[in-house]
Amino acid sequence: MGGDAGPDVVIPGAALSALRHPELRFLLVGDRSRIAPLLERHPKLKERSEILHTEVFVTMDAKPSQALRQGRGKSSMWLAIDAVRTGEAHAAVSAGNTGALMAMARFILKTLPGISRPAIAAMWPTLRSESIVLDVGATIGADASQLVEFAVMGEAMARSLFGLEKPTVGLLNVGVEEIKGAEQVKEAGRILRDSKLPIEYAGFVEGDDIGKGTVDVVVTEGFTGNIALKAAEGTAKQLSTYLKRCLQRTLMSKLGAVLASGAFAALKDRMDPRKHNGGVFLGLNGVVVKSHGGTDALGFATAIDVALETVRNDLVSKIKADVEIMTGLLKQPGHAEAKQPEPSL
Amino acid sequence: MGGDAGPDVVIPGAALSALRHPELRFLLVGDRSRIAPLLERHPKLKERSEILHTEVFVTMDAKPSQALRQGRGKSSMWLAIDAVRTGEAHAAVSAGNTGALMAMARFILKTLPGISRPAIAAMWPTLRSESIVLDVGATIGADASQLVEFAVMGEAMARSLFGLEKPTVGLLNVGVEEIKGAEQVKEAGRILRDSKLPIEYAGFVEGDDIGKGTVDVVVTEGFTGNIALKAAEGTAKQLSTYLKRCLQRTLMSKLGAVLASGAFAALKDRMDPRKHNGGVFLGLNGVVVKSHGGTDALGFATAIDVALETVRNDLVSKIKADVEIMTGLLKQPGHAEAKQPEPSL
Repeated sequence: MGGDAGPDVVIPGAALSALRHPELRFLLVGDRSRIAPLLERHPKLKERSEILHTEVFVTMDAKPSQALRQGRGKSSMWLAIDAVRTGEAHAAVSAGNTGALMAMARFILKTLPGISRPAIAAMWPTLRSESIVLDVGATIGADASQLVEFAVMGEAMARSLFGLEKPTVGLLNVGVEEIKGAEQVKEAGRILRDSKLPIEYAGFVEGDDIGKGTVDVVVTEGFTGNIALKAAEGTAKQLSTYLKRCLQRTLMSKLGAVLASGAFAALKDRMDPRKHNGGVFLGLNGVVVKSHGGTDALGFATAIDVALETVRNDLVSKIKADVEIMTGLLKQPGHAEAKQPEPSL
Repeated sequence: MGGDAGPDVVIPGAALSALRHPELRFLLVGDRSRIAPLLERHPKLKERSEILHTEVFVTMDAKPSQALRQGRGKSSMWLAIDAVRTGEAHAAVSAGNTGALMAMARFILKTLPGISRPAIAAMWPTLRSESIVLDVGATIGADASQLVEFAVMGEAMARSLFGLEKPTVGLLNVGVEEIKGAEQVKEAGRILRDSKLPIEYAGFVEGDDIGKGTVDVVVTEGFTGNIALKAAEGTAKQLSTYLKRCLQRTLMSKLGAVLASGAFAALKDRMDPRKHNGGVFLGLNGVVVKSHGGTDALGFATAIDVALETVRNDLVSKIKADVEIMTGLLKQPGHAEAKQPEPSL
């Protein structure tokens, strides 16, 4: 029911996904009177779907605490996440209110032992290929040991989803020199460098290193990560608008644009945010993926793909194992103790 | 002597500026044996320049505290800023070590009364025109009253440099709803909304609003501002690389690229980082402008242009007057007191 268009995007998105992955089954949680008519248009999806009816849903502007209170046990968001807890579903995908989704996911699925806070990981297209950036908005601020947790989780995700043996991990900072930057980032750098963690730590990276693909995993706290992600999205839109305007200026450039239309189509495809949609919630006992609220069916299908890959690669177990190793290593003398998990909401 | 190339960029940059502004005079601070031969190639600059010789200079990787200790009273950076203090120069422009430049500028010029911390303001090209973003890296972190100071200074700069009567000001946040975001940002929002400050406060803006030009002035703390700026720069480079690659794919697209070359030249010009070079240090008793360390002569000339405009518009006096109004208003009952200035370094 979430996102700007609700079932009008989610159902066609699931239908696309059903065609791509004939083995998938769908539990569609929400208002039957809105879902059922849409399903009629997608018979392939219909035969592999079940509707879990509820008329309660979390609005896009609800506060997380309010959503938890009012949506508990009955909202579509709650029921979808709870299906992951009971094992009825392998993953939950939502285009709804991010804060509410994270709060409910933490409450229902609980964080993994040794993780104090979950993070949202985004796939960021780079000149080299694709990198993982986290946290892009689960929580504001992070101390050194939380940044180390993010590094461990992001590294496990890169190994798992990109099939890399030794993905490189960088800490986002305002300079690459060891003396620069925020205290907690410097401290996280020291822990990653000095610990025996089986992580290929590459040091600090700056904002422009993300798009270059300098490292496979970029670690930062949620406020900066969210703003960096959106600033990059804004710049991409800005440049494509400039390009369109410039190509319309003369007859010659218009003709050139027609001849090069294949190249522009390739560029558009490369930049298409719908192909990089899907923020993975890391650090929970289960898979929850957040789709952009303003995406279309193609974008929502990408978010489902991401959820499927996350489940197939058993990322949750991998993170669990890695966090155990981390907790063990960081408890050794000379290391700051890993933080105890916060009590759930 | 600063930047990646030192005088090899600074002198040709000053020469360009001398052609653009025949009324300017230049005090070239640094090693005469490197500067003098370069001046021979630029007679127009030579006749309006004076060399202030020193063989001490701050390296790009020096810690600010180290630069202050070792460069005090004798380094080129120190002497250039000190010339602003004595009135011998109207502004100092440097491509050197940002942290050292800011530390020395604070030490020599002092912050304005009522300002607890200076900020670096960048010009950010937008779809609408250009916006001011601050702080892009003077200091890490800022509390609510410091963010309000940034808003006041950025607004004065937009009025002054863009000639706007009522520039709009936004606070960079992870969501536009009032309930979202970092505590200090929310508190700054309350102060800006409830105070009688003569500022057109437009609320929170997100990362993608910067490039859209949603507001004329975007206020944030230096860590996030620096990373957003560099993430946007990285994305711009990334897209221009994609575009070049795509246009090289087929004969047809290569031909199209030739025909549309005027459009691409216009796009390149629009995106040219050298045309938006120059971070203005705001909140000091004097004008200091930081050029990108990796720029060329054209970029350095832009930074000199920015310094010239800042001086011509008497931005320092305008900020001083506005900060006095702010301090008065925020001291009224019901407002958090404006912070006292920190002791200088």
